[in-house]
Amino acid sequence: MKTVLIIGAGGVSRVVTTKCAMNTQTFGRIVLASRTKSKCDEIAAEIKERLHVSIETASVDADDVPQLVALIQSVKPDLVLNVALPYQDLTIMDACVETGVDYLDTANYEHPDEAKFEYKLQWAKHDAFKARGIMGLLGSGFDPGVTNVFCAYAQQYLFDEIHTIDILDCNAGDHGYPFATNFNPEINLREVSSKGRYWEAGKWIETEPMAIKMVWDYPEVGPKDSYLLYHEELESLVQNIKGLKRIRFFMTFGQSYLTHMKCLENIGMLGIKEVEHKGMKIVPIEFLKTLLPDPASLGPRTVGMTNIGCVIEGLKDGKPKKVYIYNTCDHQACYRETGAQAVSYTTGVPAMIGAKLILEGKWKGAGVFNMEQFDAKPFMDELNAQGLPWKLIEMKPGESYEVD
Amino acid sequence: MKTVLIIGAGGVSRVVTTKCAMNTQTFGRIVLASRTKSKCDEIAAEIKERLHVSIETASVDADDVPQLVALIQSVKPDLVLNVALPYQDLTIMDACVETGVDYLDTANYEHPDEAKFEYKLQWAKHDAFKARGIMGLLGSGFDPGVTNVFCAYAQQYLFDEIHTIDILDCNAGDHGYPFATNFNPEINLREVSSKGRYWEAGKWIETEPMAIKMVWDYPEVGPKDSYLLYHEELESLVQNIKGLKRIRFFMTFGQSYLTHMKCLENIGMLGIKEVEHKGMKIVPIEFLKTLLPDPASLGPRTVGMTNIGCVIEGLKDGKPKKVYIYNTCDHQACYRETGAQAVSYTTGVPAMIGAKLILEGKWKGAGVFNMEQFDAKPFMDELNAQGLPWKLIEMKPGESYEVD
Repeated sequence: MKTVLIIGAGGVSRVVTTKCAMNTQTFGRIVLASRTKSKCDEIAAEIKERLHVSIETASVDADDVPQLVALIQSVKPDLVLNVALPYQDLTIMDACVETGVDYLDTANYEHPDEAKFEYKLQWAKHDAFKARGIMGLLGSGFDPGVTNVFCAYAQQYLFDEIHTIDILDCNAGDHGYPFATNFNPEINLREVSSKGRYWEAGKWIETEPMAIKMVWDYPEVGPKDSYLLYHEELESLVQNIKGLKRIRFFMTFGQSYLTHMKCLENIGMLGIKEVEHKGMKIVPIEFLKTLLPDPASLGPRTVGMTNIGCVIEGLKDGKPKKVYIYNTCDHQACYRETGAQAVSYTTGVPAMIGAKLILEGKWKGAGVFNMEQFDAKPFMDELNAQGLPWKLIEMKPGESYEVD
Repeated sequence: MKTVLIIGAGGVSRVVTTKCAMNTQTFGRIVLASRTKSKCDEIAAEIKERLHVSIETASVDADDVPQLVALIQSVKPDLVLNVALPYQDLTIMDACVETGVDYLDTANYEHPDEAKFEYKLQWAKHDAFKARGIMGLLGSGFDPGVTNVFCAYAQQYLFDEIHTIDILDCNAGDHGYPFATNFNPEINLREVSSKGRYWEAGKWIETEPMAIKMVWDYPEVGPKDSYLLYHEELESLVQNIKGLKRIRFFMTFGQSYLTHMKCLENIGMLGIKEVEHKGMKIVPIEFLKTLLPDPASLGPRTVGMTNIGCVIEGLKDGKPKKVYIYNTCDHQACYRETGAQAVSYTTGVPAMIGAKLILEGKWKGAGVFNMEQFDAKPFMDELNAQGLPWKLIEMKPGESYEVD
């Protein structure tokens, strides 16, 4: 019987824990820990009611390596599944090295500025993981995560050479509020206000923030404004997809969303430094979070679809080939199944799949790895089985879903 | 030697006090009072340096009738000039009745919702003013104020019959900030979010907020988006301009300004009720004021013009006649002269002129009056002499400055 220790109790945790509990043949024992144990208890109670599966819960400060080590030694898990905050990756990895337990994380928060930096620091732990004979799987969410697997699948099963990859991330969900964020607005802002970056002909090319825009006609969703951003999976894919000539990442943002972000930035409401107000010290972006709808409250009211996928072009048997591999997800269906909407769902399900493949010995290794470094096939099969079915469209070389 | 007691120490007060000090043949003694005496002292010190005129200062709570009465009895002014907050009009009027001193105010704050109510309450004091043998002059700012005088001038000197009046208020000043307000953003919001209202064929017609928009080509400024609003001078002009068929009021708002207001409203940042935030109680709109640039800081950096005027159409000697009477003001010129920009300047100068005409006996009466109830000529002459020169364009009947 395998034991998984899940750290973190947000929306993604709710999904991954539920999905583990739906796969008890692999996850025989599930322990859920976070700083606030009551949040774990709440998720456990919901899963108990929904699936009649019992989850153990615990309290841990994920910034504190000795606390993490003590918890791991007490729980004795086969894998630590990290869905805490991204800047807690390093302490949790250190605790895994100290205790000799496999590690998995998801990049559920995008940190376009610091992401590179953090990846480097995570990759730097490769030798320690290897020496300890344990495996660390980085970025087993959707993007990064499934997008890396789509590329690996293309490389391993569909193409002889891959020349270009466009990753296309569309959230067409509508929560009915004029403005609300699915997660920390500061992270959203950083995405929107950071320089874009893509890789072409062997080097990185930087663009002004949101400077490259196209309208992409997402299958099953429709045309949406899509902006070129830097995204962390580009960093590993450039290294692992050989012969690549260009890779880019696009994400949809609605005009109203961008306008609100800009206005809030203009008046200083996204500031992260304390402001003196009537004798009180207030951090504007924290007060903004207080004013905005609680992200957890968006789940029941968000309708519409997500579509995340990869358009991959290259050669097969000497002939040009182009495919579009994508998944669509329905916010309401995700909510009915797990109590969380599609943004959490699409991250949480791949986290469970990655953990499942490690625990079942299908993905194994000693060291720190990105998703595309393993056989994509079992992961692709699990996506279809676990609620994130994918589709593959054979496109004509030169064909595009860009409109206008 | 006449004594004026000025109550209030904001931007308009700075202008009106400076302008009184430039007319010492009428305003032999100037006393400036407000809740915070140090603000009066600061204005007095600037005027001392700029004009070598000495101003007396005092402290008074304008909400407190006995305090006001005591101050008036101590100062013994010939006129109380109210440039405090508009909701202090009634207490100051009561103190004037009790002490038997003439009264003047400006509607420097627009209260589209409550304005009607307040006017009614002010008009209700007519009999008390009349019985005491004192005069109350209401709304001696620019609009209301000068706009009423333009209409009265047309009625008395230019037309036999006036059929339509459009009042057109354009502030084309640019302070260089993405968003800032010249005064309380809550008042701004109320203007933008209140229903529009105009008068036609004997009755008031209500419109959705900002529903009627036109692009008006303001002389010396250029074309600007202009929105139909309710404005308090409509209320008295409908009563005092006989034979009127239609009167409307338009004000310019830039698209960026409106977008910011809407976004702020959407996220709840314009809320006037306390919000619990990390154990503190915060009124969102008050925190917004803290974040926004101090309105007083806009003066030195605001460039560009204002243009406020009236387009009046009717009959003269049996023939159609149409005129456009307006004033333009340069923000930087106002700032150099008085230390305040044009929005304060255009309100403060007419307040001084109204006071001057009362103290010189050119406008007199017992009771409460609006501007258009007096001979417009001496006021029109003073506008030219005191820094708000006006122009008159003879238009062709049917001609319009509306574009697009």
